[in-house]
Amino acid sequence: MTITPPALSVFQTLESEVRSYCRGWPAVFDRAQGSYLHDEDGHTYLDFFAGAGSLNYGHNNPVLKRALIDYLERDGITHGLDMATAAKRAFLESFENVVLRPRDLPYKVMFPGPTGTNAVEAALKLARKVKGREAIVSFTNAFHGMSLGSLAVTGNAFKRAGAGIPLVHGTPMPFDNYFDGQVPDFLWFERLLEDQGSGLNKPAAVIVETVQGEGGINVARPEWLRALKDLCERQDMLLIVDDIQMGCGRTGGFFSFEEAGITPDIVTLSKSISGYGLPMSLCLFRAELDIWEPGEHNGTFRGNNPAFVTAAAALNTYWTDGQMEKQTLARGEQVERALLAIVDEEGGQGLSFRGRGLVWGIEFDDHSRAGRICSRAFELGLLLETSGPESEVVKLLPPLTVSPDELDEGLRILARAVRETA
Amino acid sequence: MTITPPALSVFQTLESEVRSYCRGWPAVFDRAQGSYLHDEDGHTYLDFFAGAGSLNYGHNNPVLKRALIDYLERDGITHGLDMATAAKRAFLESFENVVLRPRDLPYKVMFPGPTGTNAVEAALKLARKVKGREAIVSFTNAFHGMSLGSLAVTGNAFKRAGAGIPLVHGTPMPFDNYFDGQVPDFLWFERLLEDQGSGLNKPAAVIVETVQGEGGINVARPEWLRALKDLCERQDMLLIVDDIQMGCGRTGGFFSFEEAGITPDIVTLSKSISGYGLPMSLCLFRAELDIWEPGEHNGTFRGNNPAFVTAAAALNTYWTDGQMEKQTLARGEQVERALLAIVDEEGGQGLSFRGRGLVWGIEFDDHSRAGRICSRAFELGLLLETSGPESEVVKLLPPLTVSPDELDEGLRILARAVRETA
Amino acid sequence: MTITPPALSVFQTLESEVRSYCRGWPAVFDRAQGSYLHDEDGHTYLDFFAGAGSLNYGHNNPVLKRALIDYLERDGITHGLDMATAAKRAFLESFENVVLRPRDLPYKVMFPGPTGTNAVEAALKLARKVKGREAIVSFTNAFHGMSLGSLAVTGNAFKRAGAGIPLVHGTPMPFDNYFDGQVPDFLWFERLLEDQGSGLNKPAAVIVETVQGEGGINVARPEWLRALKDLCERQDMLLIVDDIQMGCGRTGGFFSFEEAGITPDIVTLSKSISGYGLPMSLCLFRAELDIWEPGEHNGTFRGNNPAFVTAAAALNTYWTDGQMEKQTLARGEQVERALLAIVDEEGGQGLSFRGRGLVWGIEFDDHSRAGRICSRAFELGLLLETSGPESEVVKLLPPLTVSPDELDEGLRILARAVRETA
Amino acid sequence: MTITPPALSVFQTLESEVRSYCRGWPAVFDRAQGSYLHDEDGHTYLDFFAGAGSLNYGHNNPVLKRALIDYLERDGITHGLDMATAAKRAFLESFENVVLRPRDLPYKVMFPGPTGTNAVEAALKLARKVKGREAIVSFTNAFHGMSLGSLAVTGNAFKRAGAGIPLVHGTPMPFDNYFDGQVPDFLWFERLLEDQGSGLNKPAAVIVETVQGEGGINVARPEWLRALKDLCERQDMLLIVDDIQMGCGRTGGFFSFEEAGITPDIVTLSKSISGYGLPMSLCLFRAELDIWEPGEHNGTFRGNNPAFVTAAAALNTYWTDGQMEKQTLARGEQVERALLAIVDEEGGQGLSFRGRGLVWGIEFDDHSRAGRICSRAFELGLLLETSGPESEVVKLLPPLTVSPDELDEGLRILARAVRETA
Repeated sequence: MTITPPALSVFQTLESEVRSYCRGWPAVFDRAQGSYLHDEDGHTYLDFFAGAGSLNYGHNNPVLKRALIDYLERDGITHGLDMATAAKRAFLESFENVVLRPRDLPYKVMFPGPTGTNAVEAALKLARKVKGREAIVSFTNAFHGMSLGSLAVTGNAFKRAGAGIPLVHGTPMPFDNYFDGQVPDFLWFERLLEDQGSGLNKPAAVIVETVQGEGGINVARPEWLRALKDLCERQDMLLIVDDIQMGCGRTGGFFSFEEAGITPDIVTLSKSISGYGLPMSLCLFRAELDIWEPGEHNGTFRGNNPAFVTAAAALNTYWTDGQMEKQTLARGEQVERALLAIVDEEGGQGLSFRGRGLVWGIEFDDHSRAGRICSRAFELGLLLETSGPESEVVKLLPPLTVSPDELDEGLRILARAVRETA
Repeated sequence: MTITPPALSVFQTLESEVRSYCRGWPAVFDRAQGSYLHDEDGHTYLDFFAGAGSLNYGHNNPVLKRALIDYLERDGITHGLDMATAAKRAFLESFENVVLRPRDLPYKVMFPGPTGTNAVEAALKLARKVKGREAIVSFTNAFHGMSLGSLAVTGNAFKRAGAGIPLVHGTPMPFDNYFDGQVPDFLWFERLLEDQGSGLNKPAAVIVETVQGEGGINVARPEWLRALKDLCERQDMLLIVDDIQMGCGRTGGFFSFEEAGITPDIVTLSKSISGYGLPMSLCLFRAELDIWEPGEHNGTFRGNNPAFVTAAAALNTYWTDGQMEKQTLARGEQVERALLAIVDEEGGQGLSFRGRGLVWGIEFDDHSRAGRICSRAFELGLLLETSGPESEVVKLLPPLTVSPDELDEGLRILARAVRETA
Repeated sequence: MTITPPALSVFQTLESEVRSYCRGWPAVFDRAQGSYLHDEDGHTYLDFFAGAGSLNYGHNNPVLKRALIDYLERDGITHGLDMATAAKRAFLESFENVVLRPRDLPYKVMFPGPTGTNAVEAALKLARKVKGREAIVSFTNAFHGMSLGSLAVTGNAFKRAGAGIPLVHGTPMPFDNYFDGQVPDFLWFERLLEDQGSGLNKPAAVIVETVQGEGGINVARPEWLRALKDLCERQDMLLIVDDIQMGCGRTGGFFSFEEAGITPDIVTLSKSISGYGLPMSLCLFRAELDIWEPGEHNGTFRGNNPAFVTAAAALNTYWTDGQMEKQTLARGEQVERALLAIVDEEGGQGLSFRGRGLVWGIEFDDHSRAGRICSRAFELGLLLETSGPESEVVKLLPPLTVSPDELDEGLRILARAVRETA
Repeated sequence: MTITPPALSVFQTLESEVRSYCRGWPAVFDRAQGSYLHDEDGHTYLDFFAGAGSLNYGHNNPVLKRALIDYLERDGITHGLDMATAAKRAFLESFENVVLRPRDLPYKVMFPGPTGTNAVEAALKLARKVKGREAIVSFTNAFHGMSLGSLAVTGNAFKRAGAGIPLVHGTPMPFDNYFDGQVPDFLWFERLLEDQGSGLNKPAAVIVETVQGEGGINVARPEWLRALKDLCERQDMLLIVDDIQMGCGRTGGFFSFEEAGITPDIVTLSKSISGYGLPMSLCLFRAELDIWEPGEHNGTFRGNNPAFVTAAAALNTYWTDGQMEKQTLARGEQVERALLAIVDEEGGQGLSFRGRGLVWGIEFDDHSRAGRICSRAFELGLLLETSGPESEVVKLLPPLTVSPDELDEGLRILARAVRETA
C-alpha cells in the first residue's frame, strides 16, 4: 500500500502541539465501519486499537446506529443534564436488568459527566467523603485520567509533570507481579497499614485496574484481586475498580472483575459503555455509600441522551445472554495462538506477551521496537498502539465484534511487522 | 396546566441521590424542538434554561440535525481521539475562518476532552507550565467545574466541600462590583501583588468569567475587564477567560470578552460550541504559549467527531455575518423591558436585575422567593433555574434562537410567577 | 570611632552563606551589659535592637544573672523535657500569680519547644484540631516563623520562597490601615466569610500580631483588634495573638493586647519570656481548648530549665507592680518626641513614623535610606535594624531597661545618621 | 525505695494536658549530677534516658559547667542571632579542628535555630532548593520532629494526626530489615525510581537515621547505609542523615555514619551538641550545596552563645582523641552482655534486643510489658523510657560518661524489673 503524505495543514497550523495520535498515523480519516477505518485517500485500515477501548462493538455498529438516528430523527432529548428522560430511563432499566441484577451487584448508578476522568473524580470524592480521609492508594503504572484528582493516582511521570503542581494525597503500591513473584503479594502495603509508625497516611480507598491498559497490559491475577479485596475489608478501605477500559466485555465478562469473583465498593465505567464512541461514563457504588447531597457533584454533559440510547441498544443486543463473553474468550485464544507463534519465530527471545479476553500486549526487551512495529503496521494497513511507561509494549485492542478472519488478517500483519523490524 | 406526578421509579431506586434537576422538574422529558421540551404525558415546556447554556441554537436545531444525521448515515468517523479526521478539519477551518480570523485572535486550538472542566483543567495546567508557578487567582462566586483542578478555583462552599481534600493553590479576589462600588477596582489584588510581604503566592494566572452564570449573573463591566487585563500584563500573569457558559454568542458577540476589547491569553469554550448539546470543549491560547509536549494532556473523548460536525454547521449557519449578534442584543432589550415592568409591578422594592445579551438574573431580597418562582413557573410550563450562592437569583437563559413571541410568552409566565409568589 | 575590619575568617570560610546580621555589623562581639555590647577590638555599641526583642531587660541583666548562676552552681536540672521540676514549678507559679491571675486570663500553659516557631506550630496545630478545619487566616506583612507551618502564615515572599514547596492552607487578609483608611476594616474578610460562594476555605483561626515587627512596625489600633475579636467570635474562628516579639512588655503592658481589652483564644510568647536571651517559648490557650493528648506535640528542649529560672526572676523583679509598664510608656514618649524632631528637621517630607511603647519605626519614601541609616549608625556605635518588606523602615527596639540618658544618646546618633544620609 | 506522691498541683492545674514524661515519672526533680537526678523528696534516680540523648556527657558536667559559669560571669554575649561573636568563633574553630578536619568532612556549618526540628526544616528546605523538587523520602518509623516540615517525614501516626492538615510531599520506604531479610534491600525503592510509570514523585532527598531511636532502636547495617548512599548518587537525590539523637558519640564515633564509611550530603545535629542540655542545633552540608541567600532561613535563638561555650568545651574535652569512642564501645559491650543474660533468664523467648554503642533496645512480644518494666524501674530508682510505634521497646540511653559501676547498677535494676514484670 502506498501512502500519500496527507495535507495536514490546518492541523499543523492551528491545532495545538499537544496532539499525538495524528503524528503516528499521518492520515486524514473519514469513514469507518465495523473493524475498518478509511482515510480520505481511499486507504483502508484494520483497527486493532478500537478508540483506546471505546469501540468494543466496532465503528458505527449498524444496530446502534439505527437506534441513534431514529432517536435523533424523532427529536428525542439530546442534552438532559440530570433531568429524568425517557432515554435515560430506558438505559437505567436495561442496565439494571441486563447488567446488575443477573450479577447480583448492589449498585446505585451515578452519571458523573461523560468522560472517564469525571467518573474517577466522582469515585475519589465519594470515597473521601464516606471515610473522612484524604489519602488514596493506587498502583504502579496505573492510569486513571488527566484532571488533577485522577492524575494524582496515575503513575506516568511525564503525564504527572504536566499537572504543574505537586500531586499529593496518593501513594503508589506495587501492582501484581511487580517483582516477578520475588515478594509476597501486599507484603509492603499490609505492613505499612498495620505499623502505626509507618508514615503512610491511612487511605480512604484503593483504586485499581484489573488489567492496566496504558501501563503496559499488566494483568492482575484473580487471586491477587481477591487478596486486595480482603485487605481493603480488613483495613476499612474502599475498593474502587476502574473498569473504564477493561469493562464492557473487554476481558470476557461485562465487568473485568467478575472472573475474580469480587464485588468492588465503587466501579467506574466509560469508553465502551455508550457502545458507539459517544462520551458517557458511570460511577457505580454500593447503595449504602450513596451519601451524596443533591448536586454535590455535577457536570453539564452528564445527561448525554444520544449516548444513553446507544448504550441501551448495546446492552440489549450483546449482553442478554452469554454469547458475547464466550466469543471474546474464543477470539482471545485465537490471539494467544498467534502470539505464541510470533514468539516462536523470534526464537523465544527478546519478547513476551500477556493478556485476557481481547486485550493483549507484547513486550520487547528492545524498547524502541514496539514503536517501530506500530509504524510498520500502519504502513501495512493496521492500527496498533504502544503502551507501557517506556512505550515498550505493542497493545492489541481489536473490537470485540471482530470476525475471526479480520483477527487473522491483523495478526498476520502484526507478525510481518515484527519480522520486518527484527 | 395539570401535571400528573410521573413514574420516577427507576430514577428513585437506581440513580444516585446526587441527581438534582429532576427534583425541581418532576417530569420525564421525551422530545424537544427549538425552544420547547415535551414530556411523556404530553406537557410542553418553554425552555428558558437551554441546557445550562448548552443549547444556544435551540433543541435539535434542524440545520445541525440534518448535518449530524447525514454524517452518521454515511458512517463518518465517530470516535477519533486526536487523529486527523475530515470532520475535525472542517471544524478547524470553519473556526479559523468564521471565528478567529475576523476577530484577529492569535489562538492555537486544543481539544482537551469534551467537557468544560476538561478545558479548565487544561488551561490551568498550561498556565502553570508556562509560568512555572502553582498559584491561580479566581473570583468570588466563580464556577469553573467539578474536577479537583477546576473545583479549587470555584467559589461555592458546598461544592468545594465535596472535594474531600483541602482545595489549595487558589486565592479568591473580589469580582467586579463585589463591594457595590465602595472600593476601587483591584485595590486589594494589586496591593497584594506589589507588596513583597503580602503573603500572596505569586499567581501564574487569573481565571475569570465575564458574566458569572452559576454565581448569580454577576456582570463584569468592560472597563473592569480591561483593567484586569492590564493588571495581568503588568504583573506577568496570564489571563484565562472561562467562556464556557457566556461564549458562543450568549452575550451578543461570539466571545463574551469582545465587548471589552481585550484578548485573553487563554480561553475555554464548551457548552454551546457543538451547537447541539453534544459534549465538546476547546481550550484556546496564544500561539507562543503552545509549549505542550505531544500527549502531555489527553482524553478518550477529545475527538467527538459528531460534535465537530454540528459545531461547524452552527458556525457556518449563524456566525458568518453579524446577524446573530444583533438579534441577541435585540432580544436582550426585549427581556430588559419586561424585567423593568416586573420591578415596577413590585413597586421597585425587594428585587433587582442585571444581564447582558440573553443572560439575565433577577435577585430577590427574600432569598427563598427565587426558588418558589421557578417552581411556579414549572407548573405554568416554563423551565427556569435559580443561581447565586444562596439560590437567590432567577436566571434567564433562553436559546438565542428564541422568537420574539416565545420570549414574550416566557416573560409573561415569569411575571405571573413573580406575582403569584409575592 | 574607627572600626578595624575584624578577622571574620572562620565565619567566612566555615559558616553558611545564610548568615545575615554579621554582614551588616562587621564586628566580633564579645561581651554585653545592659544596653551595651562590646566587640573584641574594644568598641562599644549601644543596642537599639535588643536581640530582635529577646532582651527586653537588657544584656546579662544582673538580677537574672545571679539567679541563673546560682541555679547552675547548685546543679539544678538543666534539661528537663516535660518532667516536673522545681524550677518549672517556680516559673509556673510566678506566671500564674504575676501574669495570668492579675489580668484574669483563663489560660493553660504549654511548653511547645524553646523557640517562637515551635509555639506558633503548636498554636496552629491546636486550632486545627479544635475546629477540625485546615485553613488559617493571617495578615499582610505578618511574620510568624520559619518552619513550614509558621512560614505558611508569614508574608515575606523571599522567606516563603525558601520553603521549596508551595505554602498552602493560609490566606492573607489586609492588616489594619493597609489601605490608609480608604476601606472599612474587615470589609473584605467579612464578606468572604459570609458569602457561601466566596471560595474562601472556612478558617479554623486567625493569627495576628498587634504590632508587626518584621513587617515594618505596623501598629494595629485597639478598635481594630476588638473588631477582629468580635469577627472571630461571630464566625466561629479562634483568635491567635502572636505576642512573641510584642509581648513581655514591649508595648507597655505585659501582653500587647491588654490595651485593646481583648482576650485572645491562643497566645504565643517567646523571645523575652526567659528575660535573658535564653531559648524559651510558651503557648497559652483557654482551658477549654486544652484537648491535647499527652505527647501529641513534643520537643527535646521544651524544658530548658535555666530559662525557667531567669523567666521567673524576670517576672518577680519587673512585673509584680505597674512600674515597668509606666516606665516603658514614658520612654516611648521620649522616643516619640525625638522622632518628631527628626521629621521636623527633614521638613516633614519623605518619612513618617509610628510605634507603641518601646517599639518604633521610621519609614522612608526612599527605601534604600533605611539601610544606609543603619550602616551609618553602626559606624557611630549604635545597633539599629531595618524592617518592612523592602527594608524601608528603621526599627527602634531598645531594651525596656534603657535609661533616659542612654535612650537620648541613641536617639541623637539616630538623628545624626538620618541627617548624614539625606 | 518509697516514693511519696509529689505535690504536682500547679502542673496539673496550669500546665497543658500535652505534658507526658511527668506522668510516667511522678516526681518533682530538682538537681542532677553526672548519671543521677534527685527529686525534691530526696530520692535519687539513675538516668538511663539522658534527656532523650541530649545529655551524653551527663548532667551538669563539671568541665562544661565551669566554662559556662565563667562565660556568664564575665558577661559574655548571651543572645547573638547570627552576629559574629567570640564564643561562636571558638566553637566553629573547635568544630572544624576536632570534628570536621580529622574526618575529612567537606561541610559548611549552618545555625538553623536551637532545636532539632529547626535543623531538619533547614535541611529539607535546602535539599528542595538545590534540587528544585518537593518530594522527600523517609523511612518507616522515622522520627524527625514536630513542626510541619519535619512531621511530614515522621512515621508515627499519632503524632502525624496532630498536624491537623494532610501531611504530604513525603513517601515512606522500608527501613533496614523491615521485612526481616525477606526482601532485598531497596528493591521497592529502586524499582519506583527507575520505573517512569511508578507514580513516585522524584525525590529531592532521602532523610534517614542510622539508628531509629524513637522508632524502636532499629539499627541500620553499615552495608545498608552504603547501598542507600549509592542509590542516592545514582538517582540524583541528596542523602540527609539526621544525627540529632545518634550523633555526638552515641554510637561510638562522633557521627553515627562514620562506621559505614559514608559522607552524607547534609547532616543534622542537635541534642548533645551543646553537651550541657542547652538548646542548640547545626545543619551541615557539602560546601557546594551552600546556595542559601543571606537570611533566607533564620531564627531568633540560632545564636545561643552559652551553648556554643559548652559545645566547644565538650569537643575539646572529649573529642580530641579516640578515647571517648573506645570507652563507648566498651560500655556497649557491657550492656550487650547484660542483655544477653536477661534474654537467657527469660528462656530466650518473648524478647529480643539490638543496639550500637550506648543505645540499646529490648523488644517484648507482649507490647505492654515494656511500659510495665519502665514503671517498675522508676520505682526502683532507674529512669528508662519505652520506644517504638506501640511502645513495645525498652530503650537504654545512659550518658556516655556513665561509669562501669553505674552501668552495672542500672542493668541490675533493669534485670530485676524485667523479672518482676514477667
